[in-house]
Amino acid sequence: MFDKIHEECGVFGIYDNDGHDVAAATYYALFALQHRGQESCGIAINDARTITVYRDGGLVNDVFDKDILASLGKGKMAVGHVRYGTSPSNKRVDAQPLVVNHVKGCMAIANNGSLTNYSQLREKLELSGSIFHTTSDSEIIAYEITRERLHTSSIEDAICNAMYHLEGSYSFVVMSPAKLIAARDPRGFRPLCIGKRNNSYMFASESCAFDNIGATFIRDVMPGEIVIIDENGIRSITTHCNTKPSSLCVFEFIYFARPDSVVDGSSVHTARIRAGRFLAQEHPVEADVVIGVPDSGIDAAIGYAQELGIDYELGFIKNKYIGRTFIQPTQADREDKVRIKLNPISSVVAGKRVVLIDDSIVRGTTSKQIVKMLRDAGAKEVHMRISCPPFMFPCFYGTDIDSQDKLIACKYSIEEIAEHIGADSLGYLSIENVVKLAAETKLNFCTSCFTGNYPTESPTSTVKSKYLCKISE
Amino acid sequence: MFDKIHEECGVFGIYDNDGHDVAAATYYALFALQHRGQESCGIAINDARTITVYRDGGLVNDVFDKDILASLGKGKMAVGHVRYGTSPSNKRVDAQPLVVNHVKGCMAIANNGSLTNYSQLREKLELSGSIFHTTSDSEIIAYEITRERLHTSSIEDAICNAMYHLEGSYSFVVMSPAKLIAARDPRGFRPLCIGKRNNSYMFASESCAFDNIGATFIRDVMPGEIVIIDENGIRSITTHCNTKPSSLCVFEFIYFARPDSVVDGSSVHTARIRAGRFLAQEHPVEADVVIGVPDSGIDAAIGYAQELGIDYELGFIKNKYIGRTFIQPTQADREDKVRIKLNPISSVVAGKRVVLIDDSIVRGTTSKQIVKMLRDAGAKEVHMRISCPPFMFPCFYGTDIDSQDKLIACKYSIEEIAEHIGADSLGYLSIENVVKLAAETKLNFCTSCFTGNYPTESPTSTVKSKYLCKISE
Amino acid sequence: MFDKIHEECGVFGIYDNDGHDVAAATYYALFALQHRGQESCGIAINDARTITVYRDGGLVNDVFDKDILASLGKGKMAVGHVRYGTSPSNKRVDAQPLVVNHVKGCMAIANNGSLTNYSQLREKLELSGSIFHTTSDSEIIAYEITRERLHTSSIEDAICNAMYHLEGSYSFVVMSPAKLIAARDPRGFRPLCIGKRNNSYMFASESCAFDNIGATFIRDVMPGEIVIIDENGIRSITTHCNTKPSSLCVFEFIYFARPDSVVDGSSVHTARIRAGRFLAQEHPVEADVVIGVPDSGIDAAIGYAQELGIDYELGFIKNKYIGRTFIQPTQADREDKVRIKLNPISSVVAGKRVVLIDDSIVRGTTSKQIVKMLRDAGAKEVHMRISCPPFMFPCFYGTDIDSQDKLIACKYSIEEIAEHIGADSLGYLSIENVVKLAAETKLNFCTSCFTGNYPTESPTSTVKSKYLCKISE
Amino acid sequence: MFDKIHEECGVFGIYDNDGHDVAAATYYALFALQHRGQESCGIAINDARTITVYRDGGLVNDVFDKDILASLGKGKMAVGHVRYGTSPSNKRVDAQPLVVNHVKGCMAIANNGSLTNYSQLREKLELSGSIFHTTSDSEIIAYEITRERLHTSSIEDAICNAMYHLEGSYSFVVMSPAKLIAARDPRGFRPLCIGKRNNSYMFASESCAFDNIGATFIRDVMPGEIVIIDENGIRSITTHCNTKPSSLCVFEFIYFARPDSVVDGSSVHTARIRAGRFLAQEHPVEADVVIGVPDSGIDAAIGYAQELGIDYELGFIKNKYIGRTFIQPTQADREDKVRIKLNPISSVVAGKRVVLIDDSIVRGTTSKQIVKMLRDAGAKEVHMRISCPPFMFPCFYGTDIDSQDKLIACKYSIEEIAEHIGADSLGYLSIENVVKLAAETKLNFCTSCFTGNYPTESPTSTVKSKYLCKISE
Repeated sequence: MFDKIHEECGVFGIYDNDGHDVAAATYYALFALQHRGQESCGIAINDARTITVYRDGGLVNDVFDKDILASLGKGKMAVGHVRYGTSPSNKRVDAQPLVVNHVKGCMAIANNGSLTNYSQLREKLELSGSIFHTTSDSEIIAYEITRERLHTSSIEDAICNAMYHLEGSYSFVVMSPAKLIAARDPRGFRPLCIGKRNNSYMFASESCAFDNIGATFIRDVMPGEIVIIDENGIRSITTHCNTKPSSLCVFEFIYFARPDSVVDGSSVHTARIRAGRFLAQEHPVEADVVIGVPDSGIDAAIGYAQELGIDYELGFIKNKYIGRTFIQPTQADREDKVRIKLNPISSVVAGKRVVLIDDSIVRGTTSKQIVKMLRDAGAKEVHMRISCPPFMFPCFYGTDIDSQDKLIACKYSIEEIAEHIGADSLGYLSIENVVKLAAETKLNFCTSCFTGNYPTESPTSTVKSKYLCKISE
Repeated sequence: MFDKIHEECGVFGIYDNDGHDVAAATYYALFALQHRGQESCGIAINDARTITVYRDGGLVNDVFDKDILASLGKGKMAVGHVRYGTSPSNKRVDAQPLVVNHVKGCMAIANNGSLTNYSQLREKLELSGSIFHTTSDSEIIAYEITRERLHTSSIEDAICNAMYHLEGSYSFVVMSPAKLIAARDPRGFRPLCIGKRNNSYMFASESCAFDNIGATFIRDVMPGEIVIIDENGIRSITTHCNTKPSSLCVFEFIYFARPDSVVDGSSVHTARIRAGRFLAQEHPVEADVVIGVPDSGIDAAIGYAQELGIDYELGFIKNKYIGRTFIQPTQADREDKVRIKLNPISSVVAGKRVVLIDDSIVRGTTSKQIVKMLRDAGAKEVHMRISCPPFMFPCFYGTDIDSQDKLIACKYSIEEIAEHIGADSLGYLSIENVVKLAAETKLNFCTSCFTGNYPTESPTSTVKSKYLCKISE
Repeated sequence: MFDKIHEECGVFGIYDNDGHDVAAATYYALFALQHRGQESCGIAINDARTITVYRDGGLVNDVFDKDILASLGKGKMAVGHVRYGTSPSNKRVDAQPLVVNHVKGCMAIANNGSLTNYSQLREKLELSGSIFHTTSDSEIIAYEITRERLHTSSIEDAICNAMYHLEGSYSFVVMSPAKLIAARDPRGFRPLCIGKRNNSYMFASESCAFDNIGATFIRDVMPGEIVIIDENGIRSITTHCNTKPSSLCVFEFIYFARPDSVVDGSSVHTARIRAGRFLAQEHPVEADVVIGVPDSGIDAAIGYAQELGIDYELGFIKNKYIGRTFIQPTQADREDKVRIKLNPISSVVAGKRVVLIDDSIVRGTTSKQIVKMLRDAGAKEVHMRISCPPFMFPCFYGTDIDSQDKLIACKYSIEEIAEHIGADSLGYLSIENVVKLAAETKLNFCTSCFTGNYPTESPTSTVKSKYLCKISE
Repeated sequence: MFDKIHEECGVFGIYDNDGHDVAAATYYALFALQHRGQESCGIAINDARTITVYRDGGLVNDVFDKDILASLGKGKMAVGHVRYGTSPSNKRVDAQPLVVNHVKGCMAIANNGSLTNYSQLREKLELSGSIFHTTSDSEIIAYEITRERLHTSSIEDAICNAMYHLEGSYSFVVMSPAKLIAARDPRGFRPLCIGKRNNSYMFASESCAFDNIGATFIRDVMPGEIVIIDENGIRSITTHCNTKPSSLCVFEFIYFARPDSVVDGSSVHTARIRAGRFLAQEHPVEADVVIGVPDSGIDAAIGYAQELGIDYELGFIKNKYIGRTFIQPTQADREDKVRIKLNPISSVVAGKRVVLIDDSIVRGTTSKQIVKMLRDAGAKEVHMRISCPPFMFPCFYGTDIDSQDKLIACKYSIEEIAEHIGADSLGYLSIENVVKLAAETKLNFCTSCFTGNYPTESPTSTVKSKYLCKISE
């Protein structure tokens, strides 16, 4: 609906030793990760070495019901996935976990990230006679692991070998007949962490998944680390650790991750409060009230208000009843598309000088409408502040900032953008401060979408559409 | 999900003179009113004196799709309704608008309120051979209007006569073959207001419905007033105005109405900010942070924080992806039912003295869980503040506070409640201050659920279940 | 799909004394009656004087699933209904059983037939202040029974009194808090019979419903009879019996009823075999093979073949997989709408002189296509024989022969029709023989659609559309 | 529902040169082939070298609606498939056409048959690092074609080479970016034929598919033949023709194929009439009436009756309204599972000596119930005649006769079976006559399920369950 950058995925895996229902645990964990991908989802259960999977386009709430969850059966292990697909895609077929069979048995894989050498790997595989059912990175990864598995003595060794071929970002969980294995790329672009509940271990993209199911966060998977859980407990392969400089995506703190998560040591909410405070230092303004665009601008708005001692206020009511079957107003309708979802509270802004905080501007279309709504509601001045630097470069590591054509900051100056969206002033967070948001995190950050300094060598976008057989849902 | 008092309905009606799509306008208006009733909804269109209606159990988003909306056809008039049904009920059959045929033609009726003399009216009608398809007040009202219509020269005169028989609360919109008519009971228990878009008039339970569709709030319907819209424009019958002391439900300001609505002259958001400020004056506490229970405790939390100069903060992340098909965790699951929906942000509360604001306590079960979650997240102290007085008496005027058995405040002292929910202290807003929240409103308020002082003579609850033929959805 | 006359309804009722599941029994009975109405259906259960009903547009198979059936609960009594609605109608709202509440409690009613004085009764009721939710005869009947119930001591006396006001055809089952009552109009237009299973009694439109559930046919309800089943067993009120000459619809034997049913003493299959034999006597022809249009022309084709000693053969394969969601071919498609459903077997007809038997011709469109398909498949001659006389007059007694405009026989001679449909010859069954088909039946027959001799005084069609509030499904 | 042998698949493909809607043509063609597989279905469209597919569990009628058909887009080529899956299977994932991508582009494949060397081929592929998403033969075939494609200059050459590796039965249609290609195994187990409509060519498992869409049957694909359709027209590769003795499945004529189809030169209906006549010669009996079990026993019953000059009659009414969502009666219900679907006509059998014809007996359970129903309806004698020899051996060529445990004829003598099912006498068609049914067909027949003489070397069943990752629908 809104003009936002999207994360491509969230992953979860559990190895249960307490006799609990792993399908239910995965279902509830995926609810906590739903913000990382709303296009499709899936759950795979391993019951005595046989994997059963269900996946489809839609939210967790829509895809799974009691009967479907029950049909997955019981088991000791499960992996789950939520996915936001950059188009073009096949919602149902590209839904993960991907489940395949190879000479050593079943394998389920759920991944978050983007391989920068997808095309090269696929071409090599195709030339050896491989066939592809999807355009998913996970199918490439499954092939690479399978080929290594032919001449290695364990699945974890096969994964370790395969990682030498994989370039770009990935944080995946693999479920084999007897093991649950997580791996994170050596640069650690995407988060991945380990939790525990009684005698059971689990992996998740974010710690909030553990809160949902009464588990405790243990630690993050390190960049390059492979973590194996099986009947012998938990152990780790660190061959790929510290082989490359880390580059955690900083936008996880600004927008992707949930505020109640702790990512690689830093509280996401605290990072956003800091973003608001830095913004206030960089771009202060005399104003009567600070408001945030729900939901992702709220935290920074509170920080901005605290830093300057201006009142924080609720600026908008967001309609929480609009679901995926909502009928979009047509041009012929007088009804206002944005306003149905986000209505300003007149008594808060009428006659006031308003600071409006949002986490980003992509194309600027929504920002323009929101500023206009505030003015219609009587705001005297509207000063927009953005809690990250301007997007200037495409991302090749798992988000959908894929084209400079769509990015308003590539085409206009900040003054021109302010004029375009109708704001009295506009301020972005600086690159200097954006890397200070997650102060407790020991990793370096990827800021390539702001700076163009890519942590991997000259990546190019893989045009997956050329490989596409369209499989309708 | 949560332990809340429910409003029973929201109504909308439009008489279009601009050639716009009245079905679409009603659809979008009902989205704005969805918080007033989530059990069933319906839209009726009047096309050249023929009324077509669609209604069903479910949210507006789930009940209506493009084909259904199109099947209603085009017309100049429409009425819409959202309903929360107190059980026992028939979701589909009790959905409104009710549409009936009588000797003068069709009539659609959408009502918000509760007749206190339902049983007496129904018995009288049954003894004259009437049959009933529903247990809805609207069917009684339809009969009363129909019987009066036999010997009056207009539908508005029939409504005016019928109002002499109706006791209790009602705010209804009636659509006849050629007119759209709104009526509000003489005490004005439930809100009802008038909007305008170009040359078209409309009625709604709350002004936020007008914002959604680009219309402007004109004024409230007065207690006792009948407002008629037809081809001659808009006019009013005031026979029943000022015949009884007004008693607008004060809980509309505390919880029912949307913060961006203006009800009978007062901003709902402002009323809630005031509630927070009054609470701070009545029950101050030394604390580090003030947080609100989403969504309805947020406004008062901001007010409380402002009054005492304590930091307001985001205390919880509310999962917005949990829809009506969400599978409730079983006892056997370790998953925590409340936590899946509401997760505290540890970095906000850990080691802090926390003031927690909510709008009400009904049974206390949710409050207890929320306090526990805060303590688990590390809160040093939790001081609970409630932005209304304790519920002590049943409501007979259109909400579901129907039994003293369920009300914790009937059974325990405030200290006992504090102990029960695990709070370090607990403070409720006083009755003296609750009537000052909507300071701009000229009407008196009904506070009977707090005081037991009922504005109508000794009302008793109508046990509608005795009339029930169950009609499954 | 095909150009056929439709019956309007099938009814079923059961009073169980054996502790069996009455909802299941009604579900399976309605399957046997599905041919009498495919537009909507419903089941109402009486559990300890409370009636629960579920009804909707669609086939029994589509409307009911396990959960819905279970939601109806257990009880001693049930009534069920299948309906074919003549347009205009409201599929969901006009679905029966109709369930209403009146001063003496609940009442469910399921009816088959058509009141010829609907308008007069409705006007009288409306002038006394009645409101109507439907345009169904059942609502009129419910009102008439309710008004009589005010001053009679039992529901059966109220029904007996009400029958003095009802004109036309009706065969209904009423379920009151404690009784299950069937009534058939004094002329007996529509069938209604009594069955038994262990200690339980039941009513059904046709005896095939009893076969489905392991029950035994006992006897038919007599024209004018009221049969009451309650805790005291079964008894009968015969006040209205023999007050009018009987006039059972003869088309029940030709097309409406199922061949395995026995209606008022005559086997439907035997009646159709006889129709074929009479046709052979009236319109013999030299031919090589006799085939029938599936399914309703098959029985008469066998009779025709037997009478003349010509080989009976399978002429067509009917596609049994085409359900209600089948996508009709567009004009642009080359696909043949009729042929997808009915494909001739070339080896049967190629080079042959074919006698083609069908039960009726309404507009002639389907007949024309079928004859053409046979010629395309190589038939040398096609002689069409129809197992009833030509439709010349509208029916006012519960079928949808409602307009002479659509009836080809009103506009053309038999020779012209033969030419129109492309047949080498065409022969209809005579009126003399049509009344001899059900030779074992003691009642007289209504043949008014062939002769115009109406058994009731100058009936006129009730244009129900003038009463219609459209209630979309 | 009934105790029957199932065919595993039906295939269709079209190359359109007339600008018609190939998705619609395939949809209507699949209706005609639905009897060959009711578990899942799919349609793939090739629009300018991009393939779009939709497939799911369910009947054609349930899986496809207007929106889905439209979403497939327009194109010149399409392939369609209906599938009956032998368990265990994944309805949605194993649905065909299978669509994959390889180094030369997209390929869609729809197959009918069963590879007898599945395990050997799969093992070889797995050992080279292949991964499998399904347990379908089509995935093996796709791999074999792909591997050959790496070093051949055309897809047809790759198919020709791949056929050297494939053992067992297959009749498939492959759609490549620019060609539509059909191939039939050298023994011709399963039917496959060529049709034409204006300038467009098509392939189908049976000729009845052509009738549905106004196309004309041209000829059968020969055993071993590869037929290519592209922009240059139609041509054929006969490398594999006449390399092995033909062995067309004779059960296609007895049960699988539709009576209005012509398979390899013989009319299916005529073959069944002959089966009835042969049966009458082999097992005559003095009787009053001959009836068939609907639908597949009807043709042979007519033949039997003609041969002996006994009256053929309709013995049963089959309920045509029972769909896939029908709720099966529980043991607790008195309702009779078979009778709800098949009710005898008492007037036809009461007091008569009845010959009952069916096409086969598998386990004997249904036969027993049917004989009992006839006796309950008053039949004096019931003589059962079966229009094929007894099933004694498993089939490895694409039907689900997979275990001798289930086959009653493996365990009991004919007299014992007669006693078991309650028949007065029982006669099966002889093996001598079964091969004479399709007298016009030039091919030899596979009768291995009756004789154990397998046309391929000692085939063994592939237990695909060991490869299964369960992918729920």
